[in-house]
Amino acid sequence: MNSLDNLSVNSLRVMGAEIISKAKSGHPGIVLGAAPIVHTLFTRHLNINPQDSKWFDRDRFILSAGHGSMLLYEILHLAGFISLEDIKSFRQKGSLCPGHPEYGHTAGVEVTTGPLGQGIAMSVGLAISEKFLAARFNKNDYSVINHYTYVLCGDGDLQEGVSMEAMSLAGHLGLDKLIVLYDSNDIQLDGEVALANSENTKLKMEAMGWRHIFVENGNDCDEVDKAINLAKESDGRPVIIEIKTTIGYGAPNSGEASVHGKPLSTEQLIELRKNLDYHFDEFDFPEDVKKQYKQMVSDRGYNACCSWNKDLEDYSAKYPADYKALCSFMYEDYKIDEFDTMPKYEIGSKISTRKVMGQIIDWMGSKLPNIMGGSADLSSSTMVKGADGIFGPSNPLGRNIKFGVREHAMAAITNGITVHGGLRAYCAGFFVFSDYMKPAIRLAALMSIPSLFYFSHDSICVGEDGPTHQPIEQLTMIRSIPNTNLFRPADAREMTAAIFESFKPNKYPTVIVTTRQDLPVLDCTKPEEVSRGAYVAYEPSKPCKYVIVTCGSELSLCLEVAKKLESEKIYVRVVSMPSMFLFDKQSVEYKESILPSNLPVMAVEMGSSMPWYKYAKVVHGIDTFGLSMPLKELPEVFGFTVDAIIDDFKKNLKK
Amino acid sequence: MNSLDNLSVNSLRVMGAEIISKAKSGHPGIVLGAAPIVHTLFTRHLNINPQDSKWFDRDRFILSAGHGSMLLYEILHLAGFISLEDIKSFRQKGSLCPGHPEYGHTAGVEVTTGPLGQGIAMSVGLAISEKFLAARFNKNDYSVINHYTYVLCGDGDLQEGVSMEAMSLAGHLGLDKLIVLYDSNDIQLDGEVALANSENTKLKMEAMGWRHIFVENGNDCDEVDKAINLAKESDGRPVIIEIKTTIGYGAPNSGEASVHGKPLSTEQLIELRKNLDYHFDEFDFPEDVKKQYKQMVSDRGYNACCSWNKDLEDYSAKYPADYKALCSFMYEDYKIDEFDTMPKYEIGSKISTRKVMGQIIDWMGSKLPNIMGGSADLSSSTMVKGADGIFGPSNPLGRNIKFGVREHAMAAITNGITVHGGLRAYCAGFFVFSDYMKPAIRLAALMSIPSLFYFSHDSICVGEDGPTHQPIEQLTMIRSIPNTNLFRPADAREMTAAIFESFKPNKYPTVIVTTRQDLPVLDCTKPEEVSRGAYVAYEPSKPCKYVIVTCGSELSLCLEVAKKLESEKIYVRVVSMPSMFLFDKQSVEYKESILPSNLPVMAVEMGSSMPWYKYAKVVHGIDTFGLSMPLKELPEVFGFTVDAIIDDFKKNLKK
Repeated sequence: MNSLDNLSVNSLRVMGAEIISKAKSGHPGIVLGAAPIVHTLFTRHLNINPQDSKWFDRDRFILSAGHGSMLLYEILHLAGFISLEDIKSFRQKGSLCPGHPEYGHTAGVEVTTGPLGQGIAMSVGLAISEKFLAARFNKNDYSVINHYTYVLCGDGDLQEGVSMEAMSLAGHLGLDKLIVLYDSNDIQLDGEVALANSENTKLKMEAMGWRHIFVENGNDCDEVDKAINLAKESDGRPVIIEIKTTIGYGAPNSGEASVHGKPLSTEQLIELRKNLDYHFDEFDFPEDVKKQYKQMVSDRGYNACCSWNKDLEDYSAKYPADYKALCSFMYEDYKIDEFDTMPKYEIGSKISTRKVMGQIIDWMGSKLPNIMGGSADLSSSTMVKGADGIFGPSNPLGRNIKFGVREHAMAAITNGITVHGGLRAYCAGFFVFSDYMKPAIRLAALMSIPSLFYFSHDSICVGEDGPTHQPIEQLTMIRSIPNTNLFRPADAREMTAAIFESFKPNKYPTVIVTTRQDLPVLDCTKPEEVSRGAYVAYEPSKPCKYVIVTCGSELSLCLEVAKKLESEKIYVRVVSMPSMFLFDKQSVEYKESILPSNLPVMAVEMGSSMPWYKYAKVVHGIDTFGLSMPLKELPEVFGFTVDAIIDDFKKNLKK
Repeated sequence: MNSLDNLSVNSLRVMGAEIISKAKSGHPGIVLGAAPIVHTLFTRHLNINPQDSKWFDRDRFILSAGHGSMLLYEILHLAGFISLEDIKSFRQKGSLCPGHPEYGHTAGVEVTTGPLGQGIAMSVGLAISEKFLAARFNKNDYSVINHYTYVLCGDGDLQEGVSMEAMSLAGHLGLDKLIVLYDSNDIQLDGEVALANSENTKLKMEAMGWRHIFVENGNDCDEVDKAINLAKESDGRPVIIEIKTTIGYGAPNSGEASVHGKPLSTEQLIELRKNLDYHFDEFDFPEDVKKQYKQMVSDRGYNACCSWNKDLEDYSAKYPADYKALCSFMYEDYKIDEFDTMPKYEIGSKISTRKVMGQIIDWMGSKLPNIMGGSADLSSSTMVKGADGIFGPSNPLGRNIKFGVREHAMAAITNGITVHGGLRAYCAGFFVFSDYMKPAIRLAALMSIPSLFYFSHDSICVGEDGPTHQPIEQLTMIRSIPNTNLFRPADAREMTAAIFESFKPNKYPTVIVTTRQDLPVLDCTKPEEVSRGAYVAYEPSKPCKYVIVTCGSELSLCLEVAKKLESEKIYVRVVSMPSMFLFDKQSVEYKESILPSNLPVMAVEMGSSMPWYKYAKVVHGIDTFGLSMPLKELPEVFGFTVDAIIDDFKKNLKK
């Protein structure tokens, strides 16, 4: 290792630790321990261009151990993405350098990380995108898509179930351009890793179809470099490079858990400088280090990007049709222009919304070459799959991802594909198992990305499978995630509109929840109003005195309720509210026109009552678990019949 | 394999398939495929006693592949736990045999399963209980605790992250009396396993510290028996027995995915009988089969139980103190009798509720020898750990479980320990990571068991770690789970009461959410009212015209608000509501006395507004993600200052 690398690594260490101490908050352990790894990766391998941080064919670097954010920010600064002032304002109000890396907030940050395991799992999605796009666009003489996905992870990341699910799938799929750099320091927050874990990492990874490379001395940039070079010589498997490091290297408490997440004291910082023989000023990098990063990261990346642009120009001349298509992928130009061109469903016919979902996704797949997705071993139940066969080493152009029974990783991988750019990704499962996917759905919302989560089996009407499979509180769980749009369509027409909306370039994820059971295609549903979240589906013959607001399979039931009440001269409006999220975004006037504040409102939904009290005085919901029995008997047991709803209405709303 | 075993296995197959077809719902694939495995286990190994289904030292059998419920029910019937009518009413209204096995519903069902992975993960908790209790009570001459935990799992179970987390921990802990029977049939719902998974199971399991035994022919009961015998010869590792079977064995569509979850048609049932050469009546078992089960399951189990009781009697004579303690464990006699004996906190002092949590859990650990738990690699932050050192092979009496960064398995294992009996289990993490634990928390609620989930870092006041670590919607997520009690205590005094309540023998799990930051110990909090969910914390000097309802760290803020408003002659009552769940259980009169229906109510909480609209017209909450910045600046940014709340109050409540 040359002395310049040594200087650079030590400056990253000291600067990082000093800024963390200045912020009185942060994680010095990984900055001090993993600096040589990330330094080596960025200076010798990673192709990124600070002048075009969204360069399509850049290598992706995912800091799965998101608490090491300082290390990433320092390097992004040195590479020219962010300023010195930015990194000095680490973890302060308004800073470009928040506590954990945030996608969309800081140039050069590829995904939001912090909750362990999510970074690794998303990286599998990124690598899937690369593999697919490379297969689609590369020619013998041009590799226009040719980049690596690198991950830095720690011991904690590899204990998470979501990582294991994702890595198992990555091994199966042969994602050989996915390279995980494992900062193996034998220490986690609560002490030695050995107190909680005694796996044989090499054997385990090999058993999952990964290649394992070992680096004895993580302080030696040349060793790290050699391992990365080796990793790039593909044998068809993704690669994990286990790199032995010392947590908090250089600090007086190095090798101890206390250095993980506690800023160093003034005395410890002095000792750190002494131990590393580092004498430069505080809060800036030595000129030589800046120069090294300019040459070896910024300029090298810039040149790589220029050369790619040049290649692309040649490619466009030689393969104009492919070039045009590539641009459509890159700029996400594919869309269904007109809602009216979408499949139609005959009013009066009956069809489950899951079936509609399957049919429309299939139809979209045939129209849009840039959509890709699948189910968690449930495609025969959710009806959701991708086009062009199963994605994998023998068919990298397949757009059906068989996720296996790996719901959590499925959601995170969907985020990874979405965030890569070029492709729109969706995934599907039973709605009750959205529980398994919650952390990743939340992350999509936090990243403001349009991941698509489609679910079937939306209520107790699942029937015989019983309470383990009957969602009750899942609608509440998803609706309460900030920046998340949940649609629960009332029939095939609303369903079509919901999918249409979901494929727009939204700044939020969309969750669509569908029925297992058949629903009538209604004449009163208004697909064109779905984007407003709620609309009047039924207006009585005389001025209404009450409102019933509902969604999903309960709309047709509530229409019957309103008609029966009307025969008793009780005039009730029925509002269909497929999306609370979109309704809440409407103007005060629109909201008032749908749910007038002077009218008593009752809400009806086969799920927990909680989300509805915002709109309704009385909620006819289900706040207990479901029961295993045939579908035809369930509505009566849970009070979802015309008579039971009218009873509740008369007792509690129209007193 | 003798002809009687053959007959029994085939009768389980045919009966199971025929009842599933009669129910028009269920999963014949596993019943037909795994019948020999479960038959062999029950007739030759499993010690259970139908006359005392809760016999403390029985072996535990966990059907992790819960969709195989029919197979379990058939055997529970043959063993004498349930009637023929029960199994014939499979999946019907009011049946003792619901779609998936439900704990507390059907005698002999040890845990609720269905969501894949949960069964395996809970089994690790059951095996921890056995290991601890055996170490605590066994003597050289008496093994009063000496039972196995057997699991039947399928391919899907082993793809779930929660299984991988739990199995990794089981290997680390050397739980050698945990034996997983892996029904390895190469088929999952969507087709061949090989389409979604290509792991080397043996290597992977060995890498995680498990022993792997392979059975080539899963139709041969003797081979299965031999493997179980081998598994019982401990080498200190848990054991997985991979047993090759044919899904849907005997059916015309055996070996195909279609047989997994679709009842056989009349024609297929006829062919099944023909293929298996089975000629007995429908809907009953041959006499020889009944006799075999009586002798080899019921009588053998009864005798084992009698012999255990006899041993216990001798044990009681020889070790009276241990016997007394064992009874206290078995009958869960340990408790804190009087709330007044619990640690006190001085009014006016300041302490975070997480610190109180840590102190009280430590104190409880010293008083109650039957409590056990730990954190997911965060005990230095949550402050929650167990007593007597780290549980593991070298210290099986340790009551601190180091779960590692395995939140999901941690929650499921906590359920497993709780459901075993003898021990009360708790676990802890950052509240935002309750997202990772949701499926297991839900299962605790569905099983009506008193699992304890303790969380720290309850709001945006986490501070610099930023939005990935700042819970917003998690309070809503947990509060909306049916049968789940969430406490968010306002100070050390409410906190003490919440823990006291949580350790009662409740029929529901308790989630307690605590602060990272210090909170004042208030004079107005009423620990004795915490069990009612809400109470009046502040009553103004003149009759109140408004109510503010709040909880957690916002109580002290709302007291200031009320006092400031009072100085303006606006009279506001402040209600502390640490538990919505308990408040909702109170009488109409009590609820009216706290939140009078004629008074406008405003709710204040640093979390999503959704749960509060049930009680309040105006909700001062947070429906966006948090921000990374120092704690002292956050309340202002998010409007949690006296002035901002008063503004909202005046604008929206007191118009």
